Amino acid sequence: MAPITSLLTAENKKITGEALQGALLDLLDLSLVGKQAHWNLTGRFFRPIHLQLDDIVKMARKTADLVAERAVAIGVSPDGRATTIANDSQVPHLDAGPIEDGKVIAAMTDILESIIRRMRKRIDATERPDPVSQDLLIGLTRDLEKHHWMIQAQR
Amino acid sequence: MAPITSLLTAENKKITGEALQGALLDLLDLSLVGKQAHWNLTGRFFRPIHLQLDDIVKMARKTADLVAERAVAIGVSPDGRATTIANDSQVPHLDAGPIEDGKVIAAMTDILESIIRRMRKRIDATERPDPVSQDLLIGLTRDLEKHHWMIQAQR
Amino acid sequence: MAPITSLLTAENKKITGEALQGALLDLLDLSLVGKQAHWNLTGRFFRPIHLQLDDIVKMARKTADLVAERAVAIGVSPDGRATTIANDSQVPHLDAGPIEDGKVIAAMTDILESIIRRMRKRIDATERPDPVSQDLLIGLTRDLEKHHWMIQAQR
Amino acid sequence: MAPITSLLTAENKKITGEALQGALLDLLDLSLVGKQAHWNLTGRFFRPIHLQLDDIVKMARKTADLVAERAVAIGVSPDGRATTIANDSQVPHLDAGPIEDGKVIAAMTDILESIIRRMRKRIDATERPDPVSQDLLIGLTRDLEKHHWMIQAQR
Amino acid sequence: MAPITSLLTAENKKITGEALQGALLDLLDLSLVGKQAHWNLTGRFFRPIHLQLDDIVKMARKTADLVAERAVAIGVSPDGRATTIANDSQVPHLDAGPIEDGKVIAAMTDILESIIRRMRKRIDATERPDPVSQDLLIGLTRDLEKHHWMIQAQR
Amino acid sequence: MAPITSLLTAENKKITGEALQGALLDLLDLSLVGKQAHWNLTGRFFRPIHLQLDDIVKMARKTADLVAERAVAIGVSPDGRATTIANDSQVPHLDAGPIEDGKVIAAMTDILESIIRRMRKRIDATERPDPVSQDLLIGLTRDLEKHHWMIQAQR
Amino acid sequence: MAPITSLLTAENKKITGEALQGALLDLLDLSLVGKQAHWNLTGRFFRPIHLQLDDIVKMARKTADLVAERAVAIGVSPDGRATTIANDSQVPHLDAGPIEDGKVIAAMTDILESIIRRMRKRIDATERPDPVSQDLLIGLTRDLEKHHWMIQAQR
Amino acid sequence: MAPITSLLTAENKKITGEALQGALLDLLDLSLVGKQAHWNLTGRFFRPIHLQLDDIVKMARKTADLVAERAVAIGVSPDGRATTIANDSQVPHLDAGPIEDGKVIAAMTDILESIIRRMRKRIDATERPDPVSQDLLIGLTRDLEKHHWMIQAQR
Amino acid sequence: MAPITSLLTAENKKITGEALQGALLDLLDLSLVGKQAHWNLTGRFFRPIHLQLDDIVKMARKTADLVAERAVAIGVSPDGRATTIANDSQVPHLDAGPIEDGKVIAAMTDILESIIRRMRKRIDATERPDPVSQDLLIGLTRDLEKHHWMIQAQR
Amino acid sequence: MAPITSLLTAENKKITGEALQGALLDLLDLSLVGKQAHWNLTGRFFRPIHLQLDDIVKMARKTADLVAERAVAIGVSPDGRATTIANDSQVPHLDAGPIEDGKVIAAMTDILESIIRRMRKRIDATERPDPVSQDLLIGLTRDLEKHHWMIQAQR
Amino acid sequence: MAPITSLLTAENKKITGEALQGALLDLLDLSLVGKQAHWNLTGRFFRPIHLQLDDIVKMARKTADLVAERAVAIGVSPDGRATTIANDSQVPHLDAGPIEDGKVIAAMTDILESIIRRMRKRIDATERPDPVSQDLLIGLTRDLEKHHWMIQAQR
Amino acid sequence: MAPITSLLTAENKKITGEALQGALLDLLDLSLVGKQAHWNLTGRFFRPIHLQLDDIVKMARKTADLVAERAVAIGVSPDGRATTIANDSQVPHLDAGPIEDGKVIAAMTDILESIIRRMRKRIDATERPDPVSQDLLIGLTRDLEKHHWMIQAQR
Repeated sequence: MAPITSLLTAENKKITGEALQGALLDLLDLSLVGKQAHWNLTGRFFRPIHLQLDDIVKMARKTADLVAERAVAIGVSPDGRATTIANDSQVPHLDAGPIEDGKVIAAMTDILESIIRRMRKRIDATERPDPVSQDLLIGLTRDLEKHHWMIQAQR
Repeated sequence: MAPITSLLTAENKKITGEALQGALLDLLDLSLVGKQAHWNLTGRFFRPIHLQLDDIVKMARKTADLVAERAVAIGVSPDGRATTIANDSQVPHLDAGPIEDGKVIAAMTDILESIIRRMRKRIDATERPDPVSQDLLIGLTRDLEKHHWMIQAQR
Repeated sequence: MAPITSLLTAENKKITGEALQGALLDLLDLSLVGKQAHWNLTGRFFRPIHLQLDDIVKMARKTADLVAERAVAIGVSPDGRATTIANDSQVPHLDAGPIEDGKVIAAMTDILESIIRRMRKRIDATERPDPVSQDLLIGLTRDLEKHHWMIQAQR
Repeated sequence: MAPITSLLTAENKKITGEALQGALLDLLDLSLVGKQAHWNLTGRFFRPIHLQLDDIVKMARKTADLVAERAVAIGVSPDGRATTIANDSQVPHLDAGPIEDGKVIAAMTDILESIIRRMRKRIDATERPDPVSQDLLIGLTRDLEKHHWMIQAQR
Repeated sequence: MAPITSLLTAENKKITGEALQGALLDLLDLSLVGKQAHWNLTGRFFRPIHLQLDDIVKMARKTADLVAERAVAIGVSPDGRATTIANDSQVPHLDAGPIEDGKVIAAMTDILESIIRRMRKRIDATERPDPVSQDLLIGLTRDLEKHHWMIQAQR
Repeated sequence: MAPITSLLTAENKKITGEALQGALLDLLDLSLVGKQAHWNLTGRFFRPIHLQLDDIVKMARKTADLVAERAVAIGVSPDGRATTIANDSQVPHLDAGPIEDGKVIAAMTDILESIIRRMRKRIDATERPDPVSQDLLIGLTRDLEKHHWMIQAQR
Repeated sequence: MAPITSLLTAENKKITGEALQGALLDLLDLSLVGKQAHWNLTGRFFRPIHLQLDDIVKMARKTADLVAERAVAIGVSPDGRATTIANDSQVPHLDAGPIEDGKVIAAMTDILESIIRRMRKRIDATERPDPVSQDLLIGLTRDLEKHHWMIQAQR
Repeated sequence: MAPITSLLTAENKKITGEALQGALLDLLDLSLVGKQAHWNLTGRFFRPIHLQLDDIVKMARKTADLVAERAVAIGVSPDGRATTIANDSQVPHLDAGPIEDGKVIAAMTDILESIIRRMRKRIDATERPDPVSQDLLIGLTRDLEKHHWMIQAQR
Repeated sequence: MAPITSLLTAENKKITGEALQGALLDLLDLSLVGKQAHWNLTGRFFRPIHLQLDDIVKMARKTADLVAERAVAIGVSPDGRATTIANDSQVPHLDAGPIEDGKVIAAMTDILESIIRRMRKRIDATERPDPVSQDLLIGLTRDLEKHHWMIQAQR
Repeated sequence: MAPITSLLTAENKKITGEALQGALLDLLDLSLVGKQAHWNLTGRFFRPIHLQLDDIVKMARKTADLVAERAVAIGVSPDGRATTIANDSQVPHLDAGPIEDGKVIAAMTDILESIIRRMRKRIDATERPDPVSQDLLIGLTRDLEKHHWMIQAQR
Repeated sequence: MAPITSLLTAENKKITGEALQGALLDLLDLSLVGKQAHWNLTGRFFRPIHLQLDDIVKMARKTADLVAERAVAIGVSPDGRATTIANDSQVPHLDAGPIEDGKVIAAMTDILESIIRRMRKRIDATERPDPVSQDLLIGLTRDLEKHHWMIQAQR
Repeated sequence: MAPITSLLTAENKKITGEALQGALLDLLDLSLVGKQAHWNLTGRFFRPIHLQLDDIVKMARKTADLVAERAVAIGVSPDGRATTIANDSQVPHLDAGPIEDGKVIAAMTDILESIIRRMRKRIDATERPDPVSQDLLIGLTRDLEKHHWMIQAQR
């Protein structure tokens, strides 16, 4: 089984690979936690937030796929298994059970800010090693920051 | 925050809720492990299996959503967070890193069979307590068994 | 004019026919009362509830059609005329005139619960007489219970 | 709960409101009676008439919605509840039970003519009070008269 | 060549497999005989019946595929070859050559009733052995009975 | 460069041209102010109002185009430049900066009412001079009054 | 063969019928002459005018159909046969053979102006006899005048 | 204005041009007479024939366009003006006024047979002069003969 | 019941009719045998061949319909009943039960070659009797030969 | 009302905010001036330029929305009101009234060049402060430069 | 590696193969030269010709694919590599650099005429050897001649 | 004929123009060589690779168009003629004739790697001269590297 090769140096591949693996975990966990809130939400604002969370989940799933496929394309094996997410994700925790609309807004604001903070570091880190991966991270950060605004506008 | 009510008795709600929560974990883990294989796959059969895995993931995501929303609808809070999946899922493990096509076929055959085995028990368990939930489980088991056939036909 | 024949015994046809005619009235009245609220709604939550009511009406109209056509298919003439609905429907009443969003949520919760209660009885009643009709009733009860959850989550 | 305001004078609003409420009842009853015939129809001409009735019902439902929303827009609360239709509608009656194709053609010809007769009066009545509502009534009368022709062409 | 495995016991697999193979032959023959009538039809009612027969053929082809794939999924090899249909199908015979509209209505009424009669037995037979296959048979019987009604309404 | 000619008399063209130019400014300003509120909105009701404003902007842009093209068609040159809107529009002003949801509802209610008031005068003014332009103004006033209702229902 | 009836008086039906028959001939001839120019066009401006003529033909065909069906709906038999168009149409003549782009622009400007002139008279004539037919004529005159502008803008 | 050139000899161009011009008149007249019957049709079979005539008109319009554009492409100017159709078309005549369904079937059978007879001669005539035009005529004759069958099946 | 007439001589009709009836049986049997292989296929190449067979079946069903409708259009009654296919089809036989991918490739290569061989004879036979039918046979032979290539490329 | 927060430093936010606000005014004014020319255009090249201007307006509206939403997302309130555009926009002026095609080409070339010049400065200015906003500006500059080429190619 | 077989004799395969390979080079070169002109075009007629060239390229790409796949289907390996096109294509040359609209019209007229001339020879050459390939060549020549007309109409 | 102008300095335009012309040749040759392999492919893996090559060709054609249009937009004339590709392209050569699946995988891996290597240099070269062109090159390199991975995963 020949490994997938790319034109990146070993060093650049390592830096970029770590950035992409980190981004993958953030986005997969965002998709899971977004669905969790989508299902367990209660309160007068149920419907608009329920739909908004699905927009976020759709974005997270789509960009997670792009990030993982970018990792393989540079020869780095992505890891998106449940245990890896559970162990390594830095996305803030969400309690089990029903959760009121106000709390969802607060929690999602924190979660998105936490992810954006890490994404911006990854954008810096990959600029020289791989502008192609950086461009992907820049694009998805724009999506994340748009959702961050639309969620926190409701505080 | 008023709990969601349903017309099921406490006993029926408990049995049905456990069946649905179990199904949810199976399907969410299937969607994660399916993507993991989709990305890390190698071998001459890369393309057909790569596409087939995405069909399975799409089915798993869609039915997971139906199952979770069914749980809330009967007043049971579904839990689909990464840590819960990591701790409670009974779906067979997949190793990290690149994985050859033959091994993917073998692993997915096991994974689907393992999930189907539990789904059939849930179909039996929910027959009397809630035929509405049972009908949902029957429908998605047909999808799972179809994919099980199409994967194992390749052994 | 030859009557439509089916393979059900007279007894089974009678039981199933009553269940379907009852379901038809529930669903037609739900479509009328849903539109009534859709038009007369007021309050800060106007837009999300206005749209949600249309989802419910769409579901009610579509399933009413399936139920009525199922009745004819087993040789029972469905009756969905305004006077029959007005006389026989057991769906809770809605006052005329503008109605505030909170009251709509409360009223629709009651209306859906009332319909679901009768539908579950019809599921039991048709199990032996006609599993084909029962399967239709099970499917639409899942839709009704989903909307019941999404409405009452807003209390 | 502030009432919906409009720029019509009280007198014009009253006249227009009555025209719209009358139109609403005609159209809702047409949609119910059209479905009733759609389901209970028998005879050699079953299929073309079955489909034609659905075209009529679709038109009736869509224009009923426009009429009711126009009423609210001028500050008049529309009433489309089953009991109101049953009590106030002037649409000719349809017998329960199976109904032969020739009778359906005759009945629908009468029903559509009866509705058109009232609509033309409403067009006259609303010309000065509210040309915006009148324009809506003119448009839907064209639809009604088109269906009236296509039904009576089959006598 | 490893056989396709399933979780059904040998006994349940045998019963279910026979029901599915029987259903497959009924549906494939229905699709052939439906097309035969679609092409050879004559009479004043040519167009509506010509189109209606195509609706039936489309349904028969689609459900035949689901039934055959369900058979493989439980480890039973479906047989839909022309000679098997010719030898084993119990669908009533249709004469060669042009056929008048009234005769088509009569023949299709008999054909559909004959198939429905066997399908209802298969629904009973598979209830305990395999509720997943039974659910498929229930669903397609609803379609068959709907077409049976719409055909016989034209007698 | 030959001027565009039409069959209207000079007098009728002047009256109609002024009505259309006035309508154009109202609609273009509505599209700008609607977007301004769409972007700067804050508050718990962010999402439903954010989406509703886009519906209004879409309607305003589409009808502005119809009105301007109608003006050219009767030989009157429409003026929709920023300075003309800034100088001549009578649409109520919106403050710069973030704006809370309640204030947006109040402001949009005033803005729509102000535009409708002028549109109704234009409908009267164009009745004799050009019923074709009047018909366009009647149609778009119906849209404006529908949005006026749906906005003010939220007060 | 019972004639199609309508609620118009004999006098109103006669006036409206003549207006509609006249409009029908104008629109059918426009569709024929538009295609003639579409095929025989030459010159540097071939492509934009070739496409524009098809837009006009599409509009003419669609509105001719609406006008003819409106005539039947009020009980007047429309006549759109080739000999009737050839004998009664007042649309200016187009020479046979290839025709240069500049001449097409000039000819279509005349043709559209000629049709619009007659349509405006029909709008006046039908106002009292049948506002429903008038509304249709008003709407299609807007389309004709739009195309008249877009053609003559190219002189 | 340079004439459109083609690679056909003068003789072949003349023969092919006459065949195409003849086909054009047949198809344009078919589209007019088809619409005439579509509008003036009466009788119990109104709806299926009304729709079938529109299928024929759609086919006639589309193939007329292909035939005319083929004529220009070989350097022959097509003539589809109303007077040319009225003078030169050999399509059987249709009386003015309402026409019963049985008569429409008889008339359309004759009309289609008459056109097909001429088309088959054109296929023979163009075989050597221009197989490209012949291929177009063959294709549209298949469409005409299909409609001829479906119409005459109703006698 | 009047027979469908056409403009072919008795002799030409006989020759063409036999060619079309032969083509019909080939294509119907291809659709049945294609589905049989689609369901019973096993082996590492399951997925690409499974999908490819469905492409072939879709083509076979569509062209069978065109061929049968062409037969009726020339006055020849097509026969596509199961017994006729079983008795008269010359398509090579396929064994019952699971079938490995390599064997499917070999069998389908033979089946397609066998059908193409007969189709080419029918193209020759119909050239003079009916070029319209010949054109249809030429077109579908191109499809068959394309699939023949794509199947045998896998040997 | 809590302000929208972002992770940019105050300095970076100020620089980026000014770039985005400038881009917003350019794009909104482009959309207004593009429509102005779209409506008032005359000359032989009317149709191709009329359509091209609509492509430009569509692009301007879409990117203006992205730019404004990007501004809010970094905590800067965008201002797109008519008076702000009128006062601050640096887009070259367009005269009122009809405007010939050649002048439109010249004016749009200047307008696009003027906007592109400022956009390129904004790309430089935002590179370090916010690569996410820069990426958006780069993307829309590509669109602007494409339209600049396609307009100036017509000089 | 077994060669692809077909039912053509060696001689017929050789003749047909040469015709198809020649057609392939013509069409591929047309697609390249069409794009070259599409990009480098200048002049007042930029937009309509720019779009028209893309229609031609789309047609050339699609038919090139059909021709190449037809070649493989008869067992002849098509060669569409850049060097083969550069060496063997007989399509007239296009100069590098910007090219004015008038010159593009002249050049494309020559190019299309040159290709059509060769295609007509191929139609003759393949008539007896392979009517299936001939039919493909006839169809695409109709497309080429249509574009030849529409281009030269602009001289 | 005025040259297309842009805001780039002569030096930056030269560097960027060379990068874009190089990219254009790479992408056009990739589209030709991809089709060559798509047609001449043989072997058990025919179908998945046949389809995958079409995905690559589609991407190559689309990005070639973007690259060429970007070149014109900065005032550089792109050259995509067959002879230029044949002379200047650096894409590795593909032998004529049938080619086995394994060899196609190997050849496409080399071809894609060769192109990517040059694209990465162009990304570096254009960073300062024109970030807008660089952004386009970055985006298409991501596509190329994705296909490179998916091809080489099959080695």
